[in-house]
Amino acid sequence: MSVFEPKDPGYRAAAIAMFNGQPAMQTLGIVIVRLAPGEVELAMPYSAAFTQQNGFVHAGIITAGLDNACGVAAFTLMPREAGILTVEFKTTLLAPARGMRFVFKAEVVKPGRTLTFCEARAFAEHEGKTSLIATMTGTLMAMLPRA
Amino acid sequence: MSVFEPKDPGYRAAAIAMFNGQPAMQTLGIVIVRLAPGEVELAMPYSAAFTQQNGFVHAGIITAGLDNACGVAAFTLMPREAGILTVEFKTTLLAPARGMRFVFKAEVVKPGRTLTFCEARAFAEHEGKTSLIATMTGTLMAMLPRA
Amino acid sequence: MSVFEPKDPGYRAAAIAMFNGQPAMQTLGIVIVRLAPGEVELAMPYSAAFTQQNGFVHAGIITAGLDNACGVAAFTLMPREAGILTVEFKTTLLAPARGMRFVFKAEVVKPGRTLTFCEARAFAEHEGKTSLIATMTGTLMAMLPRA
Amino acid sequence: MSVFEPKDPGYRAAAIAMFNGQPAMQTLGIVIVRLAPGEVELAMPYSAAFTQQNGFVHAGIITAGLDNACGVAAFTLMPREAGILTVEFKTTLLAPARGMRFVFKAEVVKPGRTLTFCEARAFAEHEGKTSLIATMTGTLMAMLPRA
Repeated sequence: MSVFEPKDPGYRAAAIAMFNGQPAMQTLGIVIVRLAPGEVELAMPYSAAFTQQNGFVHAGIITAGLDNACGVAAFTLMPREAGILTVEFKTTLLAPARGMRFVFKAEVVKPGRTLTFCEARAFAEHEGKTSLIATMTGTLMAMLPRA
Repeated sequence: MSVFEPKDPGYRAAAIAMFNGQPAMQTLGIVIVRLAPGEVELAMPYSAAFTQQNGFVHAGIITAGLDNACGVAAFTLMPREAGILTVEFKTTLLAPARGMRFVFKAEVVKPGRTLTFCEARAFAEHEGKTSLIATMTGTLMAMLPRA
Repeated sequence: MSVFEPKDPGYRAAAIAMFNGQPAMQTLGIVIVRLAPGEVELAMPYSAAFTQQNGFVHAGIITAGLDNACGVAAFTLMPREAGILTVEFKTTLLAPARGMRFVFKAEVVKPGRTLTFCEARAFAEHEGKTSLIATMTGTLMAMLPRA
Repeated sequence: MSVFEPKDPGYRAAAIAMFNGQPAMQTLGIVIVRLAPGEVELAMPYSAAFTQQNGFVHAGIITAGLDNACGVAAFTLMPREAGILTVEFKTTLLAPARGMRFVFKAEVVKPGRTLTFCEARAFAEHEGKTSLIATMTGTLMAMLPRA
């Protein structure tokens, strides 16, 4: 239940096109599960190719999912002509990324003409249980054509 | 020129083994270029498979390199029996990750029995020029067997 | 409605004593409004002495309130013999700190033996309206006497 | 030795005026020690009124010094008509703020038309020794009058 009004009525198609334009998402197997104005949920399967020394998914890969969730959530509220880039984010790793499926949920905390602030949470599905494994706060920037 | 004294004389082999134990590093093509107590330099080739919608390397992948540089740098100063995990990091993206080769340099700012604080910088090599594209500050934790 | 079980049945008195032991809180006029296991709400009046060049409360002062809210929230879940210190935090400033009263709400996201992770939000009360002006994510550490 | 060229030849007077316009700085006793394009050093005396429960200066007060150092450093590189605000910062607390004098050094990592990225370090002077106690990375924004 979103509280934001998209500026671009075609936000949904635009966000999906932006997401699909990212080879990194295909390589990591990340897909969009849910999309609403200012909100997105992504999912990623476990892949041994992206693990660290203890067999858990690497923090950078979890961060890629969280960052992309923030980016898509922010992008749904931007005007049609905007591009988007990430300014900065902080990832907090609460628990090892152990599981067969990972979910990344992001929502916009405050949209703005130039900067949009998002929060995201990563969950791991392991042996029938879902647990919070990481959080992100991030700043996204709209790239607008100069008048 | 490092100012830190490693606790484990075999720190070099231990750090290389920890790094080589990470499938994600092989998948991303990241290698160790330089290693000293509390300092490390990694390098990664460009790969179209890890790009975002503008053809630049994804921020999550740059973060994976930065985080790993911090982890290896911190690990060189930990005792032999320690495992390591990342607690949190912040990545600031100063410029698009455009280039054919990326370098990640990390150094320990303050080592500790439990927590070690690191800083890292990512550089892109593009058309003969090297430029700073991202910075990280991170907190790493030593996992010690309980007495 | 807290989901955490305090380790110290006297957590309430211990948290209030820790808070009251901070001269900075008295100087800033910050008081505890609500306290539960893993949750706290603080309030601070506007003071011209702590403003920046536009007449808004300085970001460092807002951060002092957010950090203290995180610290007290984390402290309620620590064992009786623990001291507490802040490891790091990130503050995101969503809007100017304009108002006559400020509220800082923190909650524990994940408690741990050594590290506890918290999130906090700052609100400004201005002309009868309450608005979110800043967020924090922070890492707190329990200082335990060595066995 | 600064590497940045100020856009406003009167940057020095402008930065000092902005700093002096902040009542919070007077209240905390913070002064400018050194100022150059993209670089600043501030100093603050110890004050018992701003300590926490262990007698150290409160992390929020250290953050106020670090944030202000970043703000002034960024402001020296902005055009004359710009206002400035802090977008976000992360503070890492490496050691307790114990000492009779504190120094905050900030420098611009990357200036930009809209966003400027800074890094700062806080030092404590205690019993004749100066030690690094905290670091900050922050994002500052230029507020420009719309054309």
